[in-house]
Amino acid sequence: MKTGKTANPVAASPDVPQMIDLLIHARWIIPIQPAGITLENHSLAVNDGRIVGLLPRNESETRFSAAEVVELGQHVLTPGFVNLHTHAAMTLLRGLADDLPLMNWLQDRIWPAEAKHVTDAFVYDGTRLAAAEMLRGGITCCNDMYFFPDAAARAFDAMGMRAMLGITVLEFPTRYASDANDYLSKGLAVRDAWRDHPLLSFSLAPHAPYTVSDTTFERIATLAAQLDLPVHIHVHESRNEIEEGQKQSGMRPLARLDRLGLVNPALIAVHAVHLDTTDLALLASTGASVAHNPTSNMKLASGACPVAKLVAQGINVGLGTDGAASNNRLDILQEMRHAALLAKLTADDPTVLDAHTVLGMATLGGAKAMGLADEIGSLEIGKYADLCAIRLDEWIAQPCFDPASHLIYVAGREQVSHVWVAGQCRVKAHTLIDFNESALLGTVNLWQNNLQV
Amino acid sequence: MKTGKTANPVAASPDVPQMIDLLIHARWIIPIQPAGITLENHSLAVNDGRIVGLLPRNESETRFSAAEVVELGQHVLTPGFVNLHTHAAMTLLRGLADDLPLMNWLQDRIWPAEAKHVTDAFVYDGTRLAAAEMLRGGITCCNDMYFFPDAAARAFDAMGMRAMLGITVLEFPTRYASDANDYLSKGLAVRDAWRDHPLLSFSLAPHAPYTVSDTTFERIATLAAQLDLPVHIHVHESRNEIEEGQKQSGMRPLARLDRLGLVNPALIAVHAVHLDTTDLALLASTGASVAHNPTSNMKLASGACPVAKLVAQGINVGLGTDGAASNNRLDILQEMRHAALLAKLTADDPTVLDAHTVLGMATLGGAKAMGLADEIGSLEIGKYADLCAIRLDEWIAQPCFDPASHLIYVAGREQVSHVWVAGQCRVKAHTLIDFNESALLGTVNLWQNNLQV
Repeated sequence: MKTGKTANPVAASPDVPQMIDLLIHARWIIPIQPAGITLENHSLAVNDGRIVGLLPRNESETRFSAAEVVELGQHVLTPGFVNLHTHAAMTLLRGLADDLPLMNWLQDRIWPAEAKHVTDAFVYDGTRLAAAEMLRGGITCCNDMYFFPDAAARAFDAMGMRAMLGITVLEFPTRYASDANDYLSKGLAVRDAWRDHPLLSFSLAPHAPYTVSDTTFERIATLAAQLDLPVHIHVHESRNEIEEGQKQSGMRPLARLDRLGLVNPALIAVHAVHLDTTDLALLASTGASVAHNPTSNMKLASGACPVAKLVAQGINVGLGTDGAASNNRLDILQEMRHAALLAKLTADDPTVLDAHTVLGMATLGGAKAMGLADEIGSLEIGKYADLCAIRLDEWIAQPCFDPASHLIYVAGREQVSHVWVAGQCRVKAHTLIDFNESALLGTVNLWQNNLQV
Repeated sequence: MKTGKTANPVAASPDVPQMIDLLIHARWIIPIQPAGITLENHSLAVNDGRIVGLLPRNESETRFSAAEVVELGQHVLTPGFVNLHTHAAMTLLRGLADDLPLMNWLQDRIWPAEAKHVTDAFVYDGTRLAAAEMLRGGITCCNDMYFFPDAAARAFDAMGMRAMLGITVLEFPTRYASDANDYLSKGLAVRDAWRDHPLLSFSLAPHAPYTVSDTTFERIATLAAQLDLPVHIHVHESRNEIEEGQKQSGMRPLARLDRLGLVNPALIAVHAVHLDTTDLALLASTGASVAHNPTSNMKLASGACPVAKLVAQGINVGLGTDGAASNNRLDILQEMRHAALLAKLTADDPTVLDAHTVLGMATLGGAKAMGLADEIGSLEIGKYADLCAIRLDEWIAQPCFDPASHLIYVAGREQVSHVWVAGQCRVKAHTLIDFNESALLGTVNLWQNNLQV
């Protein structure tokens, strides 16, 4: 056991360096809070998995004495990225079917493949692949929605990645569950089994307004309030969904969710592509969050979420990759680039979603939506040391005038060099730690062979 | 000197293997012509810089005896990519100013930086950096438009990259030239000096309808016809350009160019974002080509070129990166992804611009626009061996069900492993050959320091 630790970072005398686990010196640090700033030649101090200091480098070595010191001389250090919407296990279906109309894609390719193949083992293997891909690209936390959440929990636990697992709810049967009650009871049992895990948490995840009944939504609203759980749902993804919803319930799906008690700060509204002024006002007045998935929305021709309007109205926005069957990369650097580009095009204004705004969405915006804004999403003292370091000195990306805009418009995920989750190093020298690439690849190849039949 | 060479690849007897320079065995080959196919376990034979065979692997070693054999067991081999619009030397301004309104960006940041810094040395150094970036990412040929084309020619020559250099024309003075006649006479002299170079060719590059007079356009039309040169021009990039053009000339800029004799198969219309039905009909009936730059168009909020309509009307389309001040990567894999995503969104149809269509734009579409369709752009016998090999077996990109769609939606340029230009290897094992990284980086750092002042 290390000595000299203190729970209160300011308790250490300035004359006696505080003993800590880790001190990171970085050329640049973007703390996200305060917003819009890039610190140069600063250091981040970590102890017991949490941030205990962020200060100029020349002060750091008198303030702290660290068991491990990491030099990031040509890197920018940011909070670990938050992927606010994914179906992690669908990495095994990456590129199974592209360039198809949405309903053919779902009904002829994705759903049959899922019906045939999605088991506990599929979800465990697919989620490990997804976690590996996400961690390697600087994503330290994701908001997952899929079947067999216990398998996903085991996978994220094995990979050391922070995740919120959706208690997925549908009215119709799959290999995982038979009806809404069955999905809920199985999911809540998994939550009970994992409730003390330091990196895992749970949401209620009714799939969409068109797959879940009023009765079930009301039960979910009650459970969400009782158990203090976020509600993770696809909503207003396509025009057709809204039209059909209006035919069936007489109201737009978001308005129906509001009537059923679900539009509030716990709501993570995924996609929210088609929003009229009433929808926008509803989201703004209730404190709900939006998970924006620009790549998926473009690839499936769903439309463009009016993100600049959301920002202007103070609606919290995070970024998601969606699943790898509709993207096909779980790459938050790509999502940041696409969010910026798409917003400028959609708003007809190149100044919207500037680099720092987009970085905020991919970190604190996601954390806030997941109810984790006190724990992660920015480099503030007391928060977990979920961190991502990105090398900016590769010749192919030179020159670099502004590290923040470089992350949005130039950097690729291959430039991510180090990743920590709650102070534990998961990626070092661009390589996942404790990760048996060839073993996982062998497993993935077996699934691919099965799926190709 | 090698023996047994023959100018006619079919002249070799099937019993005696033909002696050749290079035989490449690839897991997959996408030849572009015939369109829409992916060959598995085929081989490409190269001699004297040109393709002399494309055949099943198991036949290749009896047909050919090669001085060098390259095994690409987990790769897809494609034609080298063609970047149909760039300002190569502007890599030195990469990310100098982002997230600004177009006119502030140009007038307050880019033009002053150019006025102060753009010299022969700037263009030579910036173009070498651009050529290195492009080759490293599988681009073997680009269509460049900038000042000091002699410096650019020396740079492309030094890097062994195929390029078409624009004889840029403006009415107003820069550090390079004083008026339209001066730009033309300097540019034509450079063309004379380099006219026998095997990799370099020239276009006439009037900057845009709003910066070039009718008199100059008429002279350019005459020169283009006399000298058989393509005409490379920015056109219909923004709504404002069209409105101002209509005010000044009483007609839309494309119609004005047509009146001046410039809309014909030699025209490379760059951007062509805002096209009404008359514009589309004009392009379709005249055989002009469009250089589509999706990243630049989104980032500057110019709008979205209606590419699906162009394809439906049979208009030839190639892809461009634009310059690194407005993109900020010279990365054709990114442009392919953005072209596919943006077209689906714009057309409200996820089936448009499928993977093979986009691959065709980034290769043969560009070649055709540049008048080089008989020489490059597809893997057909007799064409130059301009080639790109991309590894598809990295775990982070698994599984891979369809190599073509994998290139569009999954692959990153870091997966480019080998590049050949006219049969000469330029990239091997993901690394540029004969390239002194640290020397170039030192030069780039000096420019960055100057520009930051």
